Amino acid sequence: MKKILAIDVGGTKLVHALINEQGDFLTTPEKVLTPKNIEELKKTFENIINKYENDIDLTAFATAGAINITNTKVESSTPNMPDGYNSIDFAKLSKKPVYVENDANAAAWAEYKVGAAKGEDNTITVTLGTGVGGGFIVNGKLLRGKSGRGGEVGSMKTATRGRICTCRRKDCWESYASGSGLKFTAEETAINCETFKSSIYKDKRPKDITTYDIINGIKMNDEYSLKVFNIWKNDLIKGLINITNIFDPESIIISGGMGEFIDTEEIEKAVNSETVVAPVKIKLAKAGNYSGMIGAALLAAEKY
Amino acid sequence: MKKILAIDVGGTKLVHALINEQGDFLTTPEKVLTPKNIEELKKTFENIINKYENDIDLTAFATAGAINITNTKVESSTPNMPDGYNSIDFAKLSKKPVYVENDANAAAWAEYKVGAAKGEDNTITVTLGTGVGGGFIVNGKLLRGKSGRGGEVGSMKTATRGRICTCRRKDCWESYASGSGLKFTAEETAINCETFKSSIYKDKRPKDITTYDIINGIKMNDEYSLKVFNIWKNDLIKGLINITNIFDPESIIISGGMGEFIDTEEIEKAVNSETVVAPVKIKLAKAGNYSGMIGAALLAAEKY
Repeated sequence: MKKILAIDVGGTKLVHALINEQGDFLTTPEKVLTPKNIEELKKTFENIINKYENDIDLTAFATAGAINITNTKVESSTPNMPDGYNSIDFAKLSKKPVYVENDANAAAWAEYKVGAAKGEDNTITVTLGTGVGGGFIVNGKLLRGKSGRGGEVGSMKTATRGRICTCRRKDCWESYASGSGLKFTAEETAINCETFKSSIYKDKRPKDITTYDIINGIKMNDEYSLKVFNIWKNDLIKGLINITNIFDPESIIISGGMGEFIDTEEIEKAVNSETVVAPVKIKLAKAGNYSGMIGAALLAAEKY
Repeated sequence: MKKILAIDVGGTKLVHALINEQGDFLTTPEKVLTPKNIEELKKTFENIINKYENDIDLTAFATAGAINITNTKVESSTPNMPDGYNSIDFAKLSKKPVYVENDANAAAWAEYKVGAAKGEDNTITVTLGTGVGGGFIVNGKLLRGKSGRGGEVGSMKTATRGRICTCRRKDCWESYASGSGLKFTAEETAINCETFKSSIYKDKRPKDITTYDIINGIKMNDEYSLKVFNIWKNDLIKGLINITNIFDPESIIISGGMGEFIDTEEIEKAVNSETVVAPVKIKLAKAGNYSGMIGAALLAAEKY
């Protein structure tokens, strides 16, 4: 059975572990801080790989950014990574094969192979965190597109309210349905809003209200917070309707930090009441915090 | 080489021809009016099939409606077809294999195999007619979804202007980017609009302005018509941006009646300026009026 060295490269942390081709961990994941300098980052990669190289069959990276079609390089800009990150040729880091995959794609693959979507050949994983990411499985294969950049569902335009996204484009789904989207909705909603004036947050400036405040406000039964959350939920639902109508998937798996605040049953009902395809199941992710590593390892094992 | 009897079932016309597995026509397509009664329709199917049955390997239908996953039945309601259409078991119409595919999916397959997207393993065909249809090729395979209903891109929500679609849902892309969408935009735009008051259509009631009027108005350089068409174009572009970001396709092929009024180069430029994936090519369909028959025949030949 193949042994894969899996490395998850985040803006803050870098985690690695050995994984077998069934997705089981052979070692406990080890974390280090992600170096802020490109040379140090490369050195860190080399050190980890050197340590395991003789013992493994291949290396798999899960990382932010758009990956090229041969899974050897990051092609897009990655604001949270050191400058020059997209100049690294991952294939050259080891004598053995190296595979790089976008972390949202890898997480979707993990949900499909060992997580909440196991056995479902048409499934989508949507990551609701600071941003919105997506990984799409179609006919049992990962949708990568012509250049490897497919699945950019956060950039889908779902509204015409004119909100400016962090990517500077207008009305991206991400700018509404992410954790940050909830904060923007809180600010927007507070302006000229009677409910806000009687809210527990009435003394805050609208732009200072946080995602956490709204989550907390819901628990306190604050009417304004409930109103904001409902608007956010409707924006989330709209995007889920769109991908359901296009993909007719068996399931949509919700991962990421915002997942714990939604009622999947309620969302599933709302989505299915508005789609023209057969009903979709909406479930929370099950492959865990290391789904990116697992997915990348399994995809690498499949390729090599 | 396989010989396929291909039958295109439209609300008005029913066309059939023999096609080989390379997509070449072996006979001239023959048209009859589509019977308005389900028994007569079945009889027509039987007559056509009886005529060719000994001479062919299989039969392929292209039709409106959602098709079941085994390609033997229409599963959705089909308002333009006789009542009972979705009770027909197509597999039982012939002693030889019968294959049924949605006409938009079939057209996309034809564009991929013998048309404008030949050789492009990730391509989308968008049909702009009275409605908006779509067929998606991912990794060289037709996206059908769990139930065969995938590709319902016309039901994607792209705006929040509150327009009611013919499906009674709100803000479907189809209600904006179709031929009928252009008419609705004309009506909406005319209300309280100075440009309309000096337009060549100023004496018409807004709701009486037709799609054709706007197309004609553009040729006459009528400012109001140009304004309406620009709004329509932006609504079209928004949906194309969404599917480009999700699928990262090599090409989007535009088919259907509205295709002849758009400048694909202009649309391509606008789409690519707003996407986060590698640039997509936007081209007009090339497989012709009978692309549904060709696509269904080729898909059937591949299955059997």
